[in-house]
Amino acid sequence: MNNPLPPLLRALSGQALPTPPIWLMRQAGRYLPEYRATRATAGGFLDLCRSPDLATEVTLQPIRRYGFDAAILFSDILIVPDALGQKVSFTEGEGPKLTPLRDCQDFATLGIGNGFRDSVAPIYQTVRQLRQALAPEVTLIGFAGSPWTVATYMVEGGGSKEFLAVKQMAFGDPGLFQSMIDLLVEASFDYLVGQVDQGAQVLQLFDSWAGALPEGEFERWVVEPTRKLVARLKAARPDIKIIGFPRGAGVLAELYAEQTGVDGLSLDSSQRLAWAVERLSPKVTLQGNLDPVLLLTGGAAMRRAVDHILETTKGVPFIFNLGHGILQQTPPEHVGELVALVRQGRA
Amino acid sequence: MNNPLPPLLRALSGQALPTPPIWLMRQAGRYLPEYRATRATAGGFLDLCRSPDLATEVTLQPIRRYGFDAAILFSDILIVPDALGQKVSFTEGEGPKLTPLRDCQDFATLGIGNGFRDSVAPIYQTVRQLRQALAPEVTLIGFAGSPWTVATYMVEGGGSKEFLAVKQMAFGDPGLFQSMIDLLVEASFDYLVGQVDQGAQVLQLFDSWAGALPEGEFERWVVEPTRKLVARLKAARPDIKIIGFPRGAGVLAELYAEQTGVDGLSLDSSQRLAWAVERLSPKVTLQGNLDPVLLLTGGAAMRRAVDHILETTKGVPFIFNLGHGILQQTPPEHVGELVALVRQGRA
Repeated sequence: MNNPLPPLLRALSGQALPTPPIWLMRQAGRYLPEYRATRATAGGFLDLCRSPDLATEVTLQPIRRYGFDAAILFSDILIVPDALGQKVSFTEGEGPKLTPLRDCQDFATLGIGNGFRDSVAPIYQTVRQLRQALAPEVTLIGFAGSPWTVATYMVEGGGSKEFLAVKQMAFGDPGLFQSMIDLLVEASFDYLVGQVDQGAQVLQLFDSWAGALPEGEFERWVVEPTRKLVARLKAARPDIKIIGFPRGAGVLAELYAEQTGVDGLSLDSSQRLAWAVERLSPKVTLQGNLDPVLLLTGGAAMRRAVDHILETTKGVPFIFNLGHGILQQTPPEHVGELVALVRQGRA
Repeated sequence: MNNPLPPLLRALSGQALPTPPIWLMRQAGRYLPEYRATRATAGGFLDLCRSPDLATEVTLQPIRRYGFDAAILFSDILIVPDALGQKVSFTEGEGPKLTPLRDCQDFATLGIGNGFRDSVAPIYQTVRQLRQALAPEVTLIGFAGSPWTVATYMVEGGGSKEFLAVKQMAFGDPGLFQSMIDLLVEASFDYLVGQVDQGAQVLQLFDSWAGALPEGEFERWVVEPTRKLVARLKAARPDIKIIGFPRGAGVLAELYAEQTGVDGLSLDSSQRLAWAVERLSPKVTLQGNLDPVLLLTGGAAMRRAVDHILETTKGVPFIFNLGHGILQQTPPEHVGELVALVRQGRA
């Protein structure tokens, strides 16, 4: 390549940039009036994810408005169980619903066959259209849920507060649970390679419920499957950059940074940044971690937090982001102010 | 005193005991048939907390059954807002409900006057009865919610997932929120001194939602009010031992251990124990942190986790506990097995 790498890829290659690249988790979403307008023309939420033209449009909306350094494919982590044969439904105002999987017989109905590939084909088309539409300096991020987090939805049948069913299965019947995790590693590999082949330059693995596991089990069900998935992806597509997001992992993020092989680690808002710079950034590019409620609130508290993040990460490879997805009540002008603050850079 | 200190107080005085003392958060509760029987004779949940004979009975039930090293007063952290004048109701199967506080006028209705003292008087009587009923080697623990966590319930009007209202108030109107926190420091001080004067030997401060704040705000709303409360309690009652439980604090637990002045720090189940031993135990006695789902599941996974905890904390001051309250589905015999495992000690 003769062109210089775009900022996000430079940061993920270990460069500390004076102005960090910025994108926001869930940057295409309900806080934007143009998203709500497009959303109203689609049927169900997964129909929107599987309509290449509409999904391309909503992915591009925040790029046009704010000029972020990266576009993230508009999709959902539950595309994978749905494609495996465990149908997912979304009801407005509620979380996703699945028929919970509880035993071997339930698992036997799932698999990566033609049904899987047909089901994810529209997503690949969206990725292809996006890469064609985006300017070269805007990096395209593909994604999937991590095996552990996707498994929580599959076993619980939706979101959960205490993760009783999935943790009881993981702790009490680890053989059965391992077979489920193995299937998810396999399906995620297949799905993510497909995204890379259509133009995704970076992959993010969302592990929203990593914080639900105690340390021994975290190693077994978060670190180990992620390590396998990352190793297989890098063996198959050596140029791909991978960001992991083990939300709620706290101190265990260090184990994750050391053992999974990810290039970047996304920090949730409760992480102590100076610790992450000291302990994690020798191994990974850091990403994060403004509290979405600070972005929603705006004003002095937001500016103070942004300054703190920019100061603390000076001199290390870093990508500015939120610590969790943007909230739908966020005033769009706060996002504009944030981008300006980050771009005006470190004093 | 001529008698040796009981194990829990020795651990909190900085002694590393070969067999750590053990108690469990929410050890008096629905997993016990004798609790359910007593509960059925009371009216509402707060009525049970305010009936000295019934509250004494349920507090003693797990001591009789398992011989724990400590009894914890059966009560609720929402006793304080209720006594301040913001009435709290519990509906079976749902969380607590309060009329949310949103502005200065809402706050103006609250105060620590005769109504407050009348409202908490039955709790003090329970503490007195408990200390009389307990053997000298069983330590009596009193408690309160920490100001931040109690404030979340008062502003949100109950439990919350994203803490939007309370965080927006804390970030956007810090003067108003500070006045609320100050009132809670004052009320908690008053309430906890009352418990100490009736026989509580240890106090635990439950900060269930400490993990909801980013670092600068964590310092301001979790660490600083806790530091003030601990300093005032220790000035007023120099012998009292205090355990803090900043749940979900992750790496920020170090700031909490360094700056609040607590004697003990209770670790949630997601904390990495070797890190806590290295970074926190020079400053505080550690407590924790078996995952309640491992206790519920039992078997090999539980035994492995207990071994890991006992091995990792060898040689440092430690109290065995869960990382969060016991789950109501827990088989009582698993608790018996756990106590035996801990008492049979480190190999």
